[in-house]
Amino acid sequence: MRWCRFQDGDRASYGIIEGDTVVAVEGEPWGATWRGATRPLAETTLLVPVVPPTFYAAGVNYREHVIENARARGVEPEFPPRADVGYRANNALIADGESIVIPRDATDLVQYEGELVAVIGTRCRRVSEAEALDYVFGYTIGNDVSERTWQREDRTFFRAKNSDTFKPMGPWIETDLDPADLEVTIRLNGREMYTYRVGDAIFSLQQFISRTSDYVTLMPGDVIWMGTDGAPENMKHGDVVEIEVPGIGVLRNPVVREA
Amino acid sequence: MRWCRFQDGDRASYGIIEGDTVVAVEGEPWGATWRGATRPLAETTLLVPVVPPTFYAAGVNYREHVIENARARGVEPEFPPRADVGYRANNALIADGESIVIPRDATDLVQYEGELVAVIGTRCRRVSEAEALDYVFGYTIGNDVSERTWQREDRTFFRAKNSDTFKPMGPWIETDLDPADLEVTIRLNGREMYTYRVGDAIFSLQQFISRTSDYVTLMPGDVIWMGTDGAPENMKHGDVVEIEVPGIGVLRNPVVREA
Repeated sequence: MRWCRFQDGDRASYGIIEGDTVVAVEGEPWGATWRGATRPLAETTLLVPVVPPTFYAAGVNYREHVIENARARGVEPEFPPRADVGYRANNALIADGESIVIPRDATDLVQYEGELVAVIGTRCRRVSEAEALDYVFGYTIGNDVSERTWQREDRTFFRAKNSDTFKPMGPWIETDLDPADLEVTIRLNGREMYTYRVGDAIFSLQQFISRTSDYVTLMPGDVIWMGTDGAPENMKHGDVVEIEVPGIGVLRNPVVREA
Repeated sequence: MRWCRFQDGDRASYGIIEGDTVVAVEGEPWGATWRGATRPLAETTLLVPVVPPTFYAAGVNYREHVIENARARGVEPEFPPRADVGYRANNALIADGESIVIPRDATDLVQYEGELVAVIGTRCRRVSEAEALDYVFGYTIGNDVSERTWQREDRTFFRAKNSDTFKPMGPWIETDLDPADLEVTIRLNGREMYTYRVGDAIFSLQQFISRTSDYVTLMPGDVIWMGTDGAPENMKHGDVVEIEVPGIGVLRNPVVREA
């Protein structure tokens, strides 16, 4: 099933996408709902598919990405010893189609990171790896836009990874998928830049959910961004970046540099 | 004015505290509201005074704290060059009176950090230092509980600072204060452990708001925890920790170790 969040007059509503139409629902996808009005998908403004209570990100989670990042910095690659999850910030979220805005004082090293995103559906604590996927509602796509100079030099990721518009997520949430079977393809201006298998991650989604939930209660609507692979390239004003996950869809965002 | 959030039947409501009573309001303190029913404060279960869209934390922001932490680790103190804000996670929030639960596998190095917390009241971007406090709704108190072994050894702060119950915040939000004039006193089992002036921070709240908002839209309900001073000590099962800010009140939480 394909779930979306859309602009419904002056409020945000959740809906189910069926072919070319959106069926509005009352409440949240992971709660009790009833069906409401139907509207054409083509005339619907999709929003970020969920605003998470807590925004988790695996960060470093693919070998090639670690090796290439280390090479760019002239250091030895260091692989994480455990599935210790990190964070991103809600202010940075934008929907499919909205513009990634490069801040006026950013360097040219502003890069995409195409990622699978898991959305938690059921509150949970101390979940085994075997049960972990039972608590996942579905999957969407994220672009973990990063300014590499700030990422290396600032004390935190506040502007390197969480500047406004740096977290495109969408276009919708697809349920009933096996995350390990999925592939992520990144395109810049229509050219394929990289494809990787989600299942090649250093730590699986099951490992992240199990380890995180040893200490933390995961809540419905929480998202876990699973990290990217490969060596991303720079994006510049006028570019269009697409992250495709067959079985989910395409997250497409234009890039502009702030005047 | 003193604002609280409380358990109102099966939902959370905001209210205004007037003497011994709570006046319920409809909506959020920073939005349009109307007054509703009145109830005795003594019979009201206060909740975390706000659940922030984004949970900001200054982190390292007092000289004595930096020096003592460096001494404990046998390294040279390093002061932050700019007001680069960090993050904490909503899952860890608990209200005044609720128990801080030390995870069963934590070391004995679980410490309090008493902090002033600013609550944003008005959406803002690119705010000057001179205007910054115009966007603050009010102030509350936070205890940035930290497991020091995990803080030093993990790749992220996910369990060192964001284990469930590690972020007591409350008891309420007080408006019309000058943050630089405030003092924070930390007591463990009634014994005064440390007192510091908020105004002795390395970077002021105005500096944090101004620099953060150069890249990030601050939203109503966002919180900024301002950091702590001094060398915190360990808390153990059976302890009670109190953070007092005269002009706001006392945030008091018992400590238990998970069985």
